[in-house]
Amino acid sequence: MIQLYDLATKYPNMRFSPFCWRIKYALAHKQLPWKEIPIKALTEKDLLPTPNEGKVPVIVDDDKVVYDSWDIALYLEEKYPHHLLFDGDESRAQSLFVKHWTETVLHILVSRMGILDFYETQNKADQKVFRETREKRFGVSLEDWGRDPEGARIEFLKALEPLRQTLRSQNFLGGRTPNFSDYIMVGIFQWMRCGSRLKVFEESDDVFDYQERLLDLFDGLGRSSPAYASIG
Amino acid sequence: MIQLYDLATKYPNMRFSPFCWRIKYALAHKQLPWKEIPIKALTEKDLLPTPNEGKVPVIVDDDKVVYDSWDIALYLEEKYPHHLLFDGDESRAQSLFVKHWTETVLHILVSRMGILDFYETQNKADQKVFRETREKRFGVSLEDWGRDPEGARIEFLKALEPLRQTLRSQNFLGGRTPNFSDYIMVGIFQWMRCGSRLKVFEESDDVFDYQERLLDLFDGLGRSSPAYASIG
Repeated sequence: MIQLYDLATKYPNMRFSPFCWRIKYALAHKQLPWKEIPIKALTEKDLLPTPNEGKVPVIVDDDKVVYDSWDIALYLEEKYPHHLLFDGDESRAQSLFVKHWTETVLHILVSRMGILDFYETQNKADQKVFRETREKRFGVSLEDWGRDPEGARIEFLKALEPLRQTLRSQNFLGGRTPNFSDYIMVGIFQWMRCGSRLKVFEESDDVFDYQERLLDLFDGLGRSSPAYASIG
Repeated sequence: MIQLYDLATKYPNMRFSPFCWRIKYALAHKQLPWKEIPIKALTEKDLLPTPNEGKVPVIVDDDKVVYDSWDIALYLEEKYPHHLLFDGDESRAQSLFVKHWTETVLHILVSRMGILDFYETQNKADQKVFRETREKRFGVSLEDWGRDPEGARIEFLKALEPLRQTLRSQNFLGGRTPNFSDYIMVGIFQWMRCGSRLKVFEESDDVFDYQERLLDLFDGLGRSSPAYASIG
């Protein structure tokens, strides 16, 4: 069975790595079972199989180790060419744009919305490294970086406008049914839903309905990790 | 032969309507000849065939009139199912996201970069209507709206980052060869190149190379309209 190294938190079932969620949805889409191996991704990097780039996800499929969520998707598509993640080369090429759109536009806003909650969910050992690496990257304290979650939320909702307009014509980025572009999006949503207590969407927002549709897929796979807001 | 109603300017061969460029590239892609009918789109709306929404592009194909660039693309794809603009439903669904991305993120920046030049290219009669309608829409004078083209240019280049990163892996949004998503992009580029004197890209920018590739397609179709900067 495929092994998937995922990001642990201090809560037993809470998983919020956006890159790992992409892969869990891709595996479910292909009806491939997997075994999840949660690790403290910042202080237990030595537990990752080789080769890796010091981050999750990493998968082990028989003797093959693959890392990087995009490369894992391409690997799965080639090795298991059924229930395709991309309807051909052109569709895959267009999903790559969606990937870069999320990573260059949305990730920084998610980070500004949720950083203090993401920090809070980490195990003690990881919290220290999390703070050090992020404060070095951002050039300010975590508290300063996450000072205005509501302002970041407003920017985030605005940045989703092209998605929102697209959803007026179709249920998924992939059209009538989801493709890997949608699993990239569910990664973003799970990052906020499971890793942060912030209520991101108004229920009247078409993007909220889209998130619900994604959470419902594969017998509610996305709901297997609790929303942080629901944890006491 | 298909007739295409396009936006005239005061220069005989200058065309910069982004929506019309999408369709000219789509027609060339499908190897369909067309006859261009330039009109003063703001003061000669009565010249448009019916039905229309008072804007270009409108095409007439035999007795069929189709308007709205997206609907025209879908019409052409169905009526002429060769040299496809979209490799199937999923690819079309993903192009719709690219369309909405350009229209919600890029259009406003192009407008802020080029508005005074776009105004300048119009015929006298259209200039009056252009000013009235735009000033009403923006709530400020054209001069205020276009006050900081360099600031808008910097924002525009930043907004193109997901495209730029995608182009590190492939020549076109469609992958190895262009699809309709790329023709949406060439519309943006032609709007600036033909309608404005601003130099948008550094030649070291991968997006500049991409623009050049698009201009080279179909025997240099995009270059059939001169760059405004080249007009004396």
